[in-house]
Amino acid sequence: MTYLTMILNGLISAGAYIMAIRIIPRFREMFIKANLFGKDLCKRDQNKIPESLGVLVGCVFLVAMFLFIPVPFTLEEAAAMDAKTGSKPVTFPHEEFVELIVALLSICCMILLGFADDVLDLRWRHKLLLPTIATLPLLMVYYVNYNSTTIIMPRFVRGLVGYSLDIGILYYIYMGMLAVFCTNAINILAGINGLEVGQSLVIAASILIFNAVELCLGHQVAGHKFSIYLMLPFFAVTLALWKYNKYPSQVFVGDTFCYFAGMTFAVVGILGHFSKTLILFFLPQIINFLYSIPQLFKFVPCPRHRLPKYDAQTDLLHISTTEFHKNELNILGKIMVTILKTLKLITWQELADGRVITNNFTLINFVLVIFGPVHEKVVTQMLMSIQVACSIVAFMIRYPLANFFYDT
Amino acid sequence: MTYLTMILNGLISAGAYIMAIRIIPRFREMFIKANLFGKDLCKRDQNKIPESLGVLVGCVFLVAMFLFIPVPFTLEEAAAMDAKTGSKPVTFPHEEFVELIVALLSICCMILLGFADDVLDLRWRHKLLLPTIATLPLLMVYYVNYNSTTIIMPRFVRGLVGYSLDIGILYYIYMGMLAVFCTNAINILAGINGLEVGQSLVIAASILIFNAVELCLGHQVAGHKFSIYLMLPFFAVTLALWKYNKYPSQVFVGDTFCYFAGMTFAVVGILGHFSKTLILFFLPQIINFLYSIPQLFKFVPCPRHRLPKYDAQTDLLHISTTEFHKNELNILGKIMVTILKTLKLITWQELADGRVITNNFTLINFVLVIFGPVHEKVVTQMLMSIQVACSIVAFMIRYPLANFFYDT
Repeated sequence: MTYLTMILNGLISAGAYIMAIRIIPRFREMFIKANLFGKDLCKRDQNKIPESLGVLVGCVFLVAMFLFIPVPFTLEEAAAMDAKTGSKPVTFPHEEFVELIVALLSICCMILLGFADDVLDLRWRHKLLLPTIATLPLLMVYYVNYNSTTIIMPRFVRGLVGYSLDIGILYYIYMGMLAVFCTNAINILAGINGLEVGQSLVIAASILIFNAVELCLGHQVAGHKFSIYLMLPFFAVTLALWKYNKYPSQVFVGDTFCYFAGMTFAVVGILGHFSKTLILFFLPQIINFLYSIPQLFKFVPCPRHRLPKYDAQTDLLHISTTEFHKNELNILGKIMVTILKTLKLITWQELADGRVITNNFTLINFVLVIFGPVHEKVVTQMLMSIQVACSIVAFMIRYPLANFFYDT
Repeated sequence: MTYLTMILNGLISAGAYIMAIRIIPRFREMFIKANLFGKDLCKRDQNKIPESLGVLVGCVFLVAMFLFIPVPFTLEEAAAMDAKTGSKPVTFPHEEFVELIVALLSICCMILLGFADDVLDLRWRHKLLLPTIATLPLLMVYYVNYNSTTIIMPRFVRGLVGYSLDIGILYYIYMGMLAVFCTNAINILAGINGLEVGQSLVIAASILIFNAVELCLGHQVAGHKFSIYLMLPFFAVTLALWKYNKYPSQVFVGDTFCYFAGMTFAVVGILGHFSKTLILFFLPQIINFLYSIPQLFKFVPCPRHRLPKYDAQTDLLHISTTEFHKNELNILGKIMVTILKTLKLITWQELADGRVITNNFTLINFVLVIFGPVHEKVVTQMLMSIQVACSIVAFMIRYPLANFFYDT
């Protein structure tokens, strides 16, 4: 019955793709009229580009999933149905059923809050609050359904703390933070055409491959099936959005999409029980975050926008820079830039009066530091290639190393 | 344990009320900046009034409900827990659990679509589509959980069709249409300060009283408890919104609120198994709809807005009118206005050239036809009184008449 369920999920995903492809262009004018538009800072033409189209593909995803709800349960019920009495089987997978519904509740809530953020332009601290709110139902259902907060320890610390450890409330904090991490990680590696959507596509594909491999190996079957049911429609609508968001962007996706994508990843990671592997697929985002720390936490002056600088004459992107006096930095800031400078991870230009010009610390700028001025389309391709390469590394870490740390 | 659950629900509702009261004024400027504002056509001052605040109380409601999720199930589980083994009891109310989650999913989806409608200003046909989409998860879960589409027949038709009748797919269409009806019924009885929120308060209070009575009588305990769990927080946040939306409105609530309120009513009616009684509480909305039919379906010319006319000098509301030539009406239109005219339900002024001036067919205008020009605040009070009177009538119909039609 699982194959039939997968096939129906695939068909519904294909339908969602076609639906999204058709309605995105129809809604463009409506978004612009509603004052939801932006201008592309890296283009010669300064046309109005509709913004926040993520809400549209999010809704298509939800409708597709609503239609899918009865499929796995009707089929499994039919398979397990007592032929004699015709009554509901005692094996009906109640907990899986409620998991699917609560996953959709968390994702729906995240799309709502993301769209509200795009429209109302909420403050920075809300970026941490909103995903926490949207994870609440997930945590609550986890609490009622399992409340298992025991983690298996890696081999080498078992001598110290034993085979497993009940970390209690910390486990819930971990799950909440995973959602905050996933949503914001995508949000801060963004700014050039197609990047948010492109990286989400690569992460979704990596998760799907991982799920398929695990299913073949017969590990955690329920969790990985659950993940595929959500990831396939997600991949489909994201692919449709990619068609319009890739260089040159006809639509922008907004924070809504970053929230939507991040929450979908967090949900499958948590309820599919592979959150550690999930984090591995976010390597470029983690690197981007670590590289950004000096500016994010104000050790180094951070301008309002850190996008690359567009040169209209050559149509190429250059690094964007920040300028400050060496004495402005506190001791931690000085240590950070010294390390980055020594490792040649940043540009460094000292002026006569002690002022310094250096690139903004984002992965996008770093690619430009290495490869020099590049066309926008190529930058996105490079960053997506990095994402693919990191996924390959993630698989190499996951399989051989997991065997080393854990007995599988 | 039920009492403890109710008390906690009450406390969470009180918290939601305080939360909503505090944050609504803080968000006013943000909504205006986001181009979400309107002008009050029935006021001398034409200040910008923030619009769509319904999304804010909807989110507060969701957060309150998220926090409430574990309460009934943890308490009931604790009560039923096998003292010896400490394992999860076999009586764990899985189906009630999934009902609560899917109710929130439908409501959350409706708030999202309602807010999208407010921001993007969708077309009229979407007003019917959106509630249908948001009811989908509810119908799907109903299908998986029960799929019971048998209805009990009233006594007097039992000779014809038997004691009960399985109406199959029609039952799902009925449930879908109930959501469309509830959301739009509130939406079209609107236009003066506080009316949408005021009528929702009366309906919510009527439902709560009905639930309490039924609980005391010991009927359908699970369904009515479920309804109270949702209705109490809903009443709380709506009361907070009322404080700012009543005459003179400091905020407008938007379609978002009408969708949110209507869907919450539909959800408790469907999952609480009292949809027929629920419809009784919508008597003024039904009357308004029936009265509006000639204009809604274009038998009589319908201007873009049918709001009462504001007289700035006297600060009173007058009926708004529509003007047409008698010969413009087709045969059905002529029959309709003749009936309404004969019953003195509309004003009728014939001009020399055969043109006719009559009031717009809304319940608000009807109140003004009866009582003459009245102050806006008083009109809202009158309409809320009508709503209360209709609820009393509804209770009178429900209890004595139900005994007549059904054996209880």
